[in-house]
Amino acid sequence: MAIECVSSVACFGGEQQRYRHAADTTQCDMHFSVYLPPQSTLRQVPVVIWLSGLTCTDENFVTKAGAQRYAAELGIALVAPDTSPRGEDVPDDPNGAYDFGLGAGFYVNATCSPWSRHYQMADYIVKELPDVLSHIGALDLTRSSLSGHSMGGHGAITLGLNNPSQYQSISAFAPISSPMNCPWGQKALSGYLGDDQQNWQKHDSAWQLANAATQLPLLVDQGDQDAFLTEQLQPHRLIEAARHSTYPLAHNMRGGYDHSYFFVASFIGEHLAFHAEHLTPA
Amino acid sequence: MAIECVSSVACFGGEQQRYRHAADTTQCDMHFSVYLPPQSTLRQVPVVIWLSGLTCTDENFVTKAGAQRYAAELGIALVAPDTSPRGEDVPDDPNGAYDFGLGAGFYVNATCSPWSRHYQMADYIVKELPDVLSHIGALDLTRSSLSGHSMGGHGAITLGLNNPSQYQSISAFAPISSPMNCPWGQKALSGYLGDDQQNWQKHDSAWQLANAATQLPLLVDQGDQDAFLTEQLQPHRLIEAARHSTYPLAHNMRGGYDHSYFFVASFIGEHLAFHAEHLTPA
Repeated sequence: MAIECVSSVACFGGEQQRYRHAADTTQCDMHFSVYLPPQSTLRQVPVVIWLSGLTCTDENFVTKAGAQRYAAELGIALVAPDTSPRGEDVPDDPNGAYDFGLGAGFYVNATCSPWSRHYQMADYIVKELPDVLSHIGALDLTRSSLSGHSMGGHGAITLGLNNPSQYQSISAFAPISSPMNCPWGQKALSGYLGDDQQNWQKHDSAWQLANAATQLPLLVDQGDQDAFLTEQLQPHRLIEAARHSTYPLAHNMRGGYDHSYFFVASFIGEHLAFHAEHLTPA
Repeated sequence: MAIECVSSVACFGGEQQRYRHAADTTQCDMHFSVYLPPQSTLRQVPVVIWLSGLTCTDENFVTKAGAQRYAAELGIALVAPDTSPRGEDVPDDPNGAYDFGLGAGFYVNATCSPWSRHYQMADYIVKELPDVLSHIGALDLTRSSLSGHSMGGHGAITLGLNNPSQYQSISAFAPISSPMNCPWGQKALSGYLGDDQQNWQKHDSAWQLANAATQLPLLVDQGDQDAFLTEQLQPHRLIEAARHSTYPLAHNMRGGYDHSYFFVASFIGEHLAFHAEHLTPA
């Protein structure tokens, strides 16, 4: 498995890096970004994996969230993978829509043609990415947490709850709370997984939260001026599911904030501090 | 003078806004961005005006520098104007080069045709922008400082030293230290101002520093891995000019940093703290 560091620049005393590798799960070249905090030159550091939302690549979070400052203070590495497979061979939404296909992998393993060959983003994030990251010696992958925004918030919650032994904590900004019950999710899950809604449940954060066997620490922030709040995000479904299963969800509704990275930037420090608590060595 | 607020979103407890107005100096519609810190709802706040570099609009700094967090802590407003006039009537470099014309106004008042009609960026920043900003009641424009990056670092130093009674302090990241002596500057100054180098001196930071009548507090940061260091930026010219005139320049050479906004983000907090010291009411 060859991974290539395509760029590395100094940032808050650490290094902001970008890597490329040929991925087995998604059958294409994938890019991901890594922020190594200054502490990583002295010891292995824990990892927060950031899952981005619709239309993003691995670079949006890196350039817009201002997370490196907090990661440098806390001694945490940040890993930002891409949101879908990429390349000339990879099929896209036939109408070029932003909410399916390229930039919209939805963190599932597609089972329907023609998507199933490349769109294996769940396995990419949970299985292949940690293997690849193990080649970066500064990362302690036994201490990993998940965070994400919008589609990536859905990804963080579902991949975390489906693989609770692999992660120490989960957080999300404006997650798609129940893909089974909103237009973005219904389009993605029916397209990638087919019409049998039994197969959708493990990719539904609210369903997972209502039925979780293991209760990983979970922090969610949502802006009350988010344009997608009512139709797509539906935070009440997450809150009700947590109440149903007495899941200890910490959910903050933030007055005045929208869906942008200005919202993420405003609270990413609190999220990284939350993860740091759970990523401390025993 | 009508100014229109085209967007306003919550950010670190304050508001990140964008405005549009018809500008008299540049004879076109101009956009600028304003960050109002949370303190601005209680009292007037001082202003740091950020001048961006080549190819930027008013939005690069806003999305990439992570400056709002520090501005919110310090109670400072951030104003980011555009880097040139814009619009269908505005002439661009005949070859579409990135270093002249659109996105490259160089913070001068052009005297040569066809540039002189619109490219009046010095007057726009120093005269018209404060007038326009006075319509935003939360801003105390009697307390204003200048900061900027690359071409904008040149702009901050030259506009500040040419108008020392108007600003409390100046800072710059990787400024073009001596436009008279580098390819970017020679192309811009000859194009906008003609070939008489007498007319270039007031737009040369090193010349200004060597001949400054008023010594405004000045902080400069430069990355030693900056790809433009030797040919375009030439920080030694600034340092030597300051030594010549015993100007109290604080100049930091930062090991490992390049020319990107990762460099700006890493030190913008120190720059805003520097300005805050000089923007405190007497």
